[in-house]
Amino acid sequence: MHEKLEQVRPADIEKRSFEIITEELRQKGKVLTPGTEPIVKRCIHTSADFDYADNLVFSQGAVEKALEALRQGAPVVTDTQMGKAGINKRKLAQYGSQVYCFMLDEDVAGMAAERGCTRACASMDKAAEMGLNGIFAIGNAPTALVRLCELIEAGKLKPKLIIAVPVGFVNVVQAKEMILDLKDVPCIVARGRKGGSNIAACICNALLYMMEE
Amino acid sequence: MHEKLEQVRPADIEKRSFEIITEELRQKGKVLTPGTEPIVKRCIHTSADFDYADNLVFSQGAVEKALEALRQGAPVVTDTQMGKAGINKRKLAQYGSQVYCFMLDEDVAGMAAERGCTRACASMDKAAEMGLNGIFAIGNAPTALVRLCELIEAGKLKPKLIIAVPVGFVNVVQAKEMILDLKDVPCIVARGRKGGSNIAACICNALLYMMEE
Repeated sequence: MHEKLEQVRPADIEKRSFEIITEELRQKGKVLTPGTEPIVKRCIHTSADFDYADNLVFSQGAVEKALEALRQGAPVVTDTQMGKAGINKRKLAQYGSQVYCFMLDEDVAGMAAERGCTRACASMDKAAEMGLNGIFAIGNAPTALVRLCELIEAGKLKPKLIIAVPVGFVNVVQAKEMILDLKDVPCIVARGRKGGSNIAACICNALLYMMEE
Repeated sequence: MHEKLEQVRPADIEKRSFEIITEELRQKGKVLTPGTEPIVKRCIHTSADFDYADNLVFSQGAVEKALEALRQGAPVVTDTQMGKAGINKRKLAQYGSQVYCFMLDEDVAGMAAERGCTRACASMDKAAEMGLNGIFAIGNAPTALVRLCELIEAGKLKPKLIIAVPVGFVNVVQAKEMILDLKDVPCIVARGRKGGSNIAACICNALLYMMEE
């Protein structure tokens, strides 16, 4: 005999979920950095993985700077269609902003072939060429993070925030550490192997929902 | 000093990732059910979470039945735009099939309001009304799983496969057990709280890539 379905109104499911997450974090003795709680909890909500209570790293003042950037209409650039699909574009539009993903663009495929790099790299080049000094939400490609570092160092790009949460087994850990080593670029990083397009979208959305509070 | 970037050609990154996953599964002493390995490993690849080696449950013959359904052009119905964005639609088109997501449809919003249910429920009703007896890839809404059970019981829907991988804290565990209790409906279930749209898409893609081998 299985546990019965809990009677929760659809509108209350998210609230109830966050209550459970908050209670279990307390039971586990996890203390989150003040101001980062809504982001960390939303990552746990998206993945049911409490590792995000430990692996998310925020540079000094990253959340405040991100909220200020969003308030000023900073564009969001992401490296997957899934990330783009997951980001709340209606909320973003309220601040006059939008999400860009260049991964399927023909010119990006051409640039990647010409420059001998991944399409994720070329899509960062395209963002720099377009002057999109906004929020970079990278959930898939460590090569995109490495290229961001190169573009920043070359003075070709100045992101308002880098959300560095690619998932995987090859160069993911190292590329995230490169972002953490950057000076003067706010970042939110899922240290280690974990992350994903869903986590990238979820952090963007957590920031957008924080602006309503 | 951080670990250096590994020199791996972009085209080889996935292969190298699967080698690492295979080796770490071996080290952990995990033995996967024959025939399910490519699916389990791709879920780990998508999440960097080895819990999927333990929590994925396959009904008897589920993989073979899923591959046969895809070969015959079975449509895929999913419950999020992110899932739809993540599923390899080019591969699916090779078998004359496509992905449906009704979550943003106006008639679904109307049905949900009228019937007092979630849009995820109403989108399952719409799939049944359209006679889409295909593959249901559910990565978000446990209410969609509950409605699938009701539609199947009422003889209004006969899915070829249910991929039951919603993530979350409210009714997720229970709804997945309801799917596992179904007779005569092949299913792939991420038992417990974990899953997500990314996992739903990844299981679809793993099946599509198995057809090429």
